[in-house]
Amino acid sequence: MLVVMEKTATRKQIERVVAVVERNGFTARPIPGGDRVSIGVLNNEGPVDAALFIGLPGVKDAVPITKPYKLVSRETKADDTLIQVGETTIGNGHLTIIAGPCAIESQDQALTIAKHVKKAGAHLFRGGAFKPRTSPYSFQGLGEEGLKILSMVRDQTGLPVVTEVMDERTFDLVEHYADIVQIGTRNMQNFSLLKRAGESYRPIMLKRGMAATIEEWLMAAEYIMARGNHQVVLCERGVRTFVHHSRNTLDLSAIPVVKKESHLPIVVDPSHAAGRRDQVLPLSRAAAAAKAHGLMVEVHHQPDQALSDGAQSLYPEQFEILCRQVMAIFKVCSGEEPF
Amino acid sequence: MLVVMEKTATRKQIERVVAVVERNGFTARPIPGGDRVSIGVLNNEGPVDAALFIGLPGVKDAVPITKPYKLVSRETKADDTLIQVGETTIGNGHLTIIAGPCAIESQDQALTIAKHVKKAGAHLFRGGAFKPRTSPYSFQGLGEEGLKILSMVRDQTGLPVVTEVMDERTFDLVEHYADIVQIGTRNMQNFSLLKRAGESYRPIMLKRGMAATIEEWLMAAEYIMARGNHQVVLCERGVRTFVHHSRNTLDLSAIPVVKKESHLPIVVDPSHAAGRRDQVLPLSRAAAAAKAHGLMVEVHHQPDQALSDGAQSLYPEQFEILCRQVMAIFKVCSGEEPF
Amino acid sequence: MLVVMEKTATRKQIERVVAVVERNGFTARPIPGGDRVSIGVLNNEGPVDAALFIGLPGVKDAVPITKPYKLVSRETKADDTLIQVGETTIGNGHLTIIAGPCAIESQDQALTIAKHVKKAGAHLFRGGAFKPRTSPYSFQGLGEEGLKILSMVRDQTGLPVVTEVMDERTFDLVEHYADIVQIGTRNMQNFSLLKRAGESYRPIMLKRGMAATIEEWLMAAEYIMARGNHQVVLCERGVRTFVHHSRNTLDLSAIPVVKKESHLPIVVDPSHAAGRRDQVLPLSRAAAAAKAHGLMVEVHHQPDQALSDGAQSLYPEQFEILCRQVMAIFKVCSGEEPF
Amino acid sequence: MLVVMEKTATRKQIERVVAVVERNGFTARPIPGGDRVSIGVLNNEGPVDAALFIGLPGVKDAVPITKPYKLVSRETKADDTLIQVGETTIGNGHLTIIAGPCAIESQDQALTIAKHVKKAGAHLFRGGAFKPRTSPYSFQGLGEEGLKILSMVRDQTGLPVVTEVMDERTFDLVEHYADIVQIGTRNMQNFSLLKRAGESYRPIMLKRGMAATIEEWLMAAEYIMARGNHQVVLCERGVRTFVHHSRNTLDLSAIPVVKKESHLPIVVDPSHAAGRRDQVLPLSRAAAAAKAHGLMVEVHHQPDQALSDGAQSLYPEQFEILCRQVMAIFKVCSGEEPF
Repeated sequence: MLVVMEKTATRKQIERVVAVVERNGFTARPIPGGDRVSIGVLNNEGPVDAALFIGLPGVKDAVPITKPYKLVSRETKADDTLIQVGETTIGNGHLTIIAGPCAIESQDQALTIAKHVKKAGAHLFRGGAFKPRTSPYSFQGLGEEGLKILSMVRDQTGLPVVTEVMDERTFDLVEHYADIVQIGTRNMQNFSLLKRAGESYRPIMLKRGMAATIEEWLMAAEYIMARGNHQVVLCERGVRTFVHHSRNTLDLSAIPVVKKESHLPIVVDPSHAAGRRDQVLPLSRAAAAAKAHGLMVEVHHQPDQALSDGAQSLYPEQFEILCRQVMAIFKVCSGEEPF
Repeated sequence: MLVVMEKTATRKQIERVVAVVERNGFTARPIPGGDRVSIGVLNNEGPVDAALFIGLPGVKDAVPITKPYKLVSRETKADDTLIQVGETTIGNGHLTIIAGPCAIESQDQALTIAKHVKKAGAHLFRGGAFKPRTSPYSFQGLGEEGLKILSMVRDQTGLPVVTEVMDERTFDLVEHYADIVQIGTRNMQNFSLLKRAGESYRPIMLKRGMAATIEEWLMAAEYIMARGNHQVVLCERGVRTFVHHSRNTLDLSAIPVVKKESHLPIVVDPSHAAGRRDQVLPLSRAAAAAKAHGLMVEVHHQPDQALSDGAQSLYPEQFEILCRQVMAIFKVCSGEEPF
Repeated sequence: MLVVMEKTATRKQIERVVAVVERNGFTARPIPGGDRVSIGVLNNEGPVDAALFIGLPGVKDAVPITKPYKLVSRETKADDTLIQVGETTIGNGHLTIIAGPCAIESQDQALTIAKHVKKAGAHLFRGGAFKPRTSPYSFQGLGEEGLKILSMVRDQTGLPVVTEVMDERTFDLVEHYADIVQIGTRNMQNFSLLKRAGESYRPIMLKRGMAATIEEWLMAAEYIMARGNHQVVLCERGVRTFVHHSRNTLDLSAIPVVKKESHLPIVVDPSHAAGRRDQVLPLSRAAAAAKAHGLMVEVHHQPDQALSDGAQSLYPEQFEILCRQVMAIFKVCSGEEPF
Repeated sequence: MLVVMEKTATRKQIERVVAVVERNGFTARPIPGGDRVSIGVLNNEGPVDAALFIGLPGVKDAVPITKPYKLVSRETKADDTLIQVGETTIGNGHLTIIAGPCAIESQDQALTIAKHVKKAGAHLFRGGAFKPRTSPYSFQGLGEEGLKILSMVRDQTGLPVVTEVMDERTFDLVEHYADIVQIGTRNMQNFSLLKRAGESYRPIMLKRGMAATIEEWLMAAEYIMARGNHQVVLCERGVRTFVHHSRNTLDLSAIPVVKKESHLPIVVDPSHAAGRRDQVLPLSRAAAAAKAHGLMVEVHHQPDQALSDGAQSLYPEQFEILCRQVMAIFKVCSGEEPF
């Protein structure tokens, strides 16, 4: 934190800021500049609240300098975190592909799709049993029955499964059936849920909030890690902007930034970013080219009969092409990395 | 829903769309235009999923025409909903003022502030016992102890109290102590929590998600109402934009739009929109001038020692001026209303 | 500018940053912190380009600390700038009301509306002769004929006139007829036009770009002032956000921020922010309550026959109510100002 | 345009809407629905202004159905537009690479960089002679001298050159020296400049405005085409969002959407999207993977001494790797295209 004083700030005002810094247990280092004084706040353990200074007489601004996260930071842990799920590893230099329907609708539907995506090259199966829906009148998921179907799919195909948890109440249940427990974009700052996830024995896939900064997203991961669960996969899924030709705007800059700031792996969900089938393939290729650690893609064999988000689901034959292309692209990018 | 066909769409493609409409139990009404056909989808009870049509051959676009909400809609219930809390009514044509600290820190702090705000004219007291904080290392609230302090404040001042609930687990507890249960911006689409709120015997104050459209916000209220609790107050608190001179951008257009679309009352939280003390008074006056049903303002007698969000808390003497000004403004606006 | 080094930065890397600072004529002041070094960049005249440092080995971030503007800054000139136009002054503590149609369509139309708005209390008349339209097929304005009509309106009503200039080519012409020359939101960073405006003998009304930060907006004003024209009025007209229930989102926090950062007056255009008639009155009252120096409102006596932006134009009788209410509100706010 | 009536709309209100439609020369087609009437507006040549209907009694909403653009539309011209520049063609199925410094600084600088980028595989050279800078105190470009240097670079390397024009006044000059004339993001809706570009004999590269929808962007291209110049290249360069870890957020969904809506080629500028060198390579690869028709990349041999935007300029050796990778990726994507 750097506290920037007004040009006209008096010595007394500067001393008051120093006093506030010290009362909070930090070290104050005044820096006389050409025409104004700034005061560095040093030796803070956690984040410093700008609120302590903004509004004090003579204070023009309080600028945060260092990042508030610790456990998620690459400055704390230099090596990439690897997430082992069944025989698959996320984060170890290959491209992990997660695919399946938006919602589990029936044994038949799930198994049909799972076989397709496995054949095409997917490493994990996804499918929602508890569905967060904008409308209370929309299909809310099969619940535990959906979880059992996922379990059956894993048994029959060998694919580990990823599924979303929506609350603490059903966490034990989801954790029991899932290989990776997903926390959705609308719950990224559901701190009670994050704390429970921090006590889970399962890896957590933490989707980025639809208007979350990377700092807020990493702080949400920090909640999980602070409770002891260090197995966190981040998932970029597009952010809300003024743009309306896609459901969200996929923020691919997040990939290099997260990789620099954190040791946690980052996968991309192009389906929810796009919201429309015809954007999913180009965005998937783009995410692979930006070197995400993985992709999570929605696939349905009968999308116009899907109970949820059919418009963005790929047909199995489209998904096959996707797999071939993203694998080839990822290979091209895995050579020289000059930065 | 209007399904817009490509200019080059064939009769067979149009027939397929009609078939999909009818298979879903709706009525299809093709509308031949100058150079393309559109197909109206009629007689739908709930929202129609654009996914059913986007991606079908020959379909250019699927445009939602009617709103997906029912119970919250003014078309369903023309009269304003009034929320009775103690001796105060929200929504009945006067300006309700809710004030207090961001977080309850101690008996002394809470009571000191409560007495100040009551004297200045506040009708309800606010204060957080469970605090959603971006960092796991920040003060998380006093929990049940905070709720007990709130209860004591009510007993001593007569002010009903508003406080936030963060999860289903502590809902019974919060509901027991609070007069109005608040659901925060980060939980606006925590659907499990909304369902629980729908079974509460308390009025719910539902803050707008920081990137929520009004439609999504009203659908969140619809979740609560669909479970039987019709006592919902909406709270606009600013949305996330590219702007960074305030913490959020207060969206005052939301007031006339919500009043037109819905019968539910809408209050404004200028403190969280601003994030800085010196913007709170102008934004409060602006919200009163836009004819919000109420204001929720953070006040602290020692903001530079507050454990949470001190930078946006008003001093008691500032809050007194605020009350005088917003009351006078509200009165000015309560005369002629030409629209 | 504060250059923040990585925790692992070497002495050599720090020395290189210092060398770059000094090669650019600035002063470097290294600040050893608890676990990393930061380097203050002092004695810079203009803005320091972060580009100089970002990307150098060992550099984590380069954080701008001071503002790049000079002439517009209140730190340069403490007193409010007053703009004198005819017998009206903008910025001197009363609320200036500017009103008129979006586009000048005919003598009759302009004069009819001008008489209405004058009677209701407007101080200036607005109307476009050169119209920036999204579509090349929409009405582009009457051009010079429109300017002559404006001149006639001034002669007959005594109201000074505000009208937009779209390019350097027609600047002399517009300057000849207008009392205040407006630069529109789409041209806020048309730097050639700003430079020409800087040589004008007329006051300039500079609308905020639809995605401009306040810093960029003030820098656009700085372009005008740097060429010698110090008569600049800023006009907030809403910014583009994810919100679509209004055409733009009116950013009322801009008012206190601009007033703090700059000595230039700021007016608000609620009509373009709203884009719909029924939001104009509440937003106008809100802008007055936030203590803008003025309002610019679109009025048309036959809005459903207007050639441009009829949907947001008030009927004359609505505008009368608006004037009464905003004047009363502004008066209420002009008493005590505690911040 | 579909005019949606209130459920309670009277027959008289519906008739009035029909009358307004017909008075404007369109055809009205009322569509009785389950519980409300909508009225289709047909046979419109250009865009229909929602303003005609919004605000009329009984009207709930007016929803645009068809797009307002004509000449840019793929519905008007099905075949891809190819832009021939020297021996290079943009839009014909290969990836065009445009590279060079942000600003032309000297003969030496320009020629050194041009030789580097040519060797690495660039097809065109870019460099600014007239520079739009946020601050009036920043380097504004060499002007005509810069154009002469560009001309010399073309003579010596054979690379056609792209450079920005900032106003009508210097258009003749820029047009004389440039092979492609660029209109920058801040001038995307400088309609006077667009009209002049429409009369140019040079291809125009039209950058997307930083908060422009694709519709607005295509309408800006429509301005150019409507004046007779059909040689337009669109350039996506990131949009402004709440995100601040990159200068802008690159919107790669724009590629498939533009390709579907329009026949004009689209290139991507990852340098201005990123604003930081370490994001340029991943974003370039992503743009190639999304099948942009070309890339425009900033390269400088001494970025820490660049007079403009050095932080985002690649070193020549980084650019070589970029060329190899994007070419390989583009080839991978050029096989099967299932959508």
